[in-house]
Amino acid sequence: MLDGLVISVDAMGGDDAPGVVIKGLEYFLKHEGKGRRARFLLHGDKAQLDPLLAKAPRTRERSEIVHTEKVIAMDDKPSQALRRGKDSSMWNAVAGVKAGRANIALSAGNTGALMAMGKLQLRMKQGVQRPALAASWPNPNGISVVLDVGANVDVDAAQLTEFAVLGEAYYKAIYKKDDPTIGLLNVGTEEQKGNAVIRAAHERLSQSQLGLNYVGYVEGNDISMGGADVVVTDGFTGNIALKTAEGTAKLIGTFFNEALKGNLWSKFTTSLNSLALFRLKRRIDPRRVNGAVFLGLNGVVIKSHGGTDHVGYANAVNIAIGLAESDFLEAIDARMDALHDEDDNIGFIV
Amino acid sequence: MLDGLVISVDAMGGDDAPGVVIKGLEYFLKHEGKGRRARFLLHGDKAQLDPLLAKAPRTRERSEIVHTEKVIAMDDKPSQALRRGKDSSMWNAVAGVKAGRANIALSAGNTGALMAMGKLQLRMKQGVQRPALAASWPNPNGISVVLDVGANVDVDAAQLTEFAVLGEAYYKAIYKKDDPTIGLLNVGTEEQKGNAVIRAAHERLSQSQLGLNYVGYVEGNDISMGGADVVVTDGFTGNIALKTAEGTAKLIGTFFNEALKGNLWSKFTTSLNSLALFRLKRRIDPRRVNGAVFLGLNGVVIKSHGGTDHVGYANAVNIAIGLAESDFLEAIDARMDALHDEDDNIGFIV
Repeated sequence: MLDGLVISVDAMGGDDAPGVVIKGLEYFLKHEGKGRRARFLLHGDKAQLDPLLAKAPRTRERSEIVHTEKVIAMDDKPSQALRRGKDSSMWNAVAGVKAGRANIALSAGNTGALMAMGKLQLRMKQGVQRPALAASWPNPNGISVVLDVGANVDVDAAQLTEFAVLGEAYYKAIYKKDDPTIGLLNVGTEEQKGNAVIRAAHERLSQSQLGLNYVGYVEGNDISMGGADVVVTDGFTGNIALKTAEGTAKLIGTFFNEALKGNLWSKFTTSLNSLALFRLKRRIDPRRVNGAVFLGLNGVVIKSHGGTDHVGYANAVNIAIGLAESDFLEAIDARMDALHDEDDNIGFIV
Repeated sequence: MLDGLVISVDAMGGDDAPGVVIKGLEYFLKHEGKGRRARFLLHGDKAQLDPLLAKAPRTRERSEIVHTEKVIAMDDKPSQALRRGKDSSMWNAVAGVKAGRANIALSAGNTGALMAMGKLQLRMKQGVQRPALAASWPNPNGISVVLDVGANVDVDAAQLTEFAVLGEAYYKAIYKKDDPTIGLLNVGTEEQKGNAVIRAAHERLSQSQLGLNYVGYVEGNDISMGGADVVVTDGFTGNIALKTAEGTAKLIGTFFNEALKGNLWSKFTTSLNSLALFRLKRRIDPRRVNGAVFLGLNGVVIKSHGGTDHVGYANAVNIAIGLAESDFLEAIDARMDALHDEDDNIGFIV
């Protein structure tokens, strides 16, 4: 048994797993993780992992391999994954948390399958309907958290209000802000905008006496401009908004490189200015915010972007550990109870 | 009666109307519109417009004021706007097209009210259910068109397939590409992703023999990375995606300015490299793609961003004229008829 803080890692999940996973762990231990107590349960194919670990001495020293050859494919349906995926690397990663062998599960694999396995093994917190995936995005003043970004394609108003409470607890735990602002993503800020589900959630959040710092409707541009610390939305819209933001950052990076490398003079002056440009690239680097969290489970499950590289993966490890070190599971329990008590008192039914 | 190409302008619509509107028209006539035949019917308050026109000689020379003091507020509900808004500047702008006095209507006012007035006065094209708002966004190879970006919060599969056909015709007319690619916005590219509406539209578009260049599902990042020329989605998701992209571009602009102005050395080297940086800023300037079009009406109605400045407004004028010069209304008729015939043949019911 590993001691200290343990991460249960799906070493086979992700577009370039297991290579990127092992490189990511090693990168974490060299940088942010230097001197921290983290240890790893690596779930995956020993024959593939051993040669990778030979080149990653820090990781090898802190890891234990739990061998399995079974892997969930990126395009498996969640139902298939549940039926055929017992003892897969992803299943076992979640099972490590369930069994108390690890504090956190981490996977860069199939999002739907990971949610289904988290839900089945760890169970939902009492009163929560479905887990929400919360992701981070930079804004001029810090970070915004957006949820749901993928797990719940169709939602009702009760779920949106739960997302608000879950997102608040997550933001407090990770970004250490006492009273984060919460906004509801809509197509305008006027009262009559949006659909019936959005308007019902807006009314409920506006009525609440729980002390939520609810600022009302926010729009798409507010995600990047910091209109709210926590941006609440359904999983369909949130997923598309976040990927749109990623694509736009990438587009501007492309334009940027083309503009600065246009000619010799450009190349020369750009090299003179390389420190400022380096700082800029660092601030808009999406790897810096890689790592999303399933909220509402009895346990911590972190989802890394499937296509990230080792630097992005290391960031997901860092988020995972920060979260596991906090008391947010208890905080969520208290807040969700209060929300549902209030639902009962005001007769909120959707 | 004005001769040549006439734009019927809601001079009072927009956050900073009528000032920005008149400045935008003047800017257009000085730049892109130099030497073009465009003339303007200006609907609005003569007492406010006259002093502005005194400072905009090119616009004054090509304009006729149609006086009205009635204005639609940015936060009026569409139903209110229809009830109380007859003879408002917006209403009259659309009426100018209906009456054959102008080729195009243009407004930076309330989107919902503009759609309602367009629909009531110009009527939908036969077989089209509701108009879709199509907006443009840059990608590394050119421009993507996204629709719907605001008019239809709830859609069914038949509407999504109509959007595909409308978007294709629009793309051909404005961006002069014979066979634009069409993608359906979803939370993943695998067959089982999304909700029932998306999947039904996907199946219908995949089956079609109309020669649509349908490439299947695209994701949020494809909007900026050029995954499809025409990106089809519902008005809720599309509005949020587009505003998210705008916000992200603005965020990076903020980071950019901070990074480059960090210290004296930075300022100096940046000034040496100003041409490249100017080119970059021009490429990511959202004003360059301002101007969205209501598709599916018997007439051309253009919506400018309510908060744009005169440069952005001028771009909307430019799009409007490009569209009015094309034969896209006829092209839409032919394609929509073919789509609905095919619907009947294969028994497509939603």
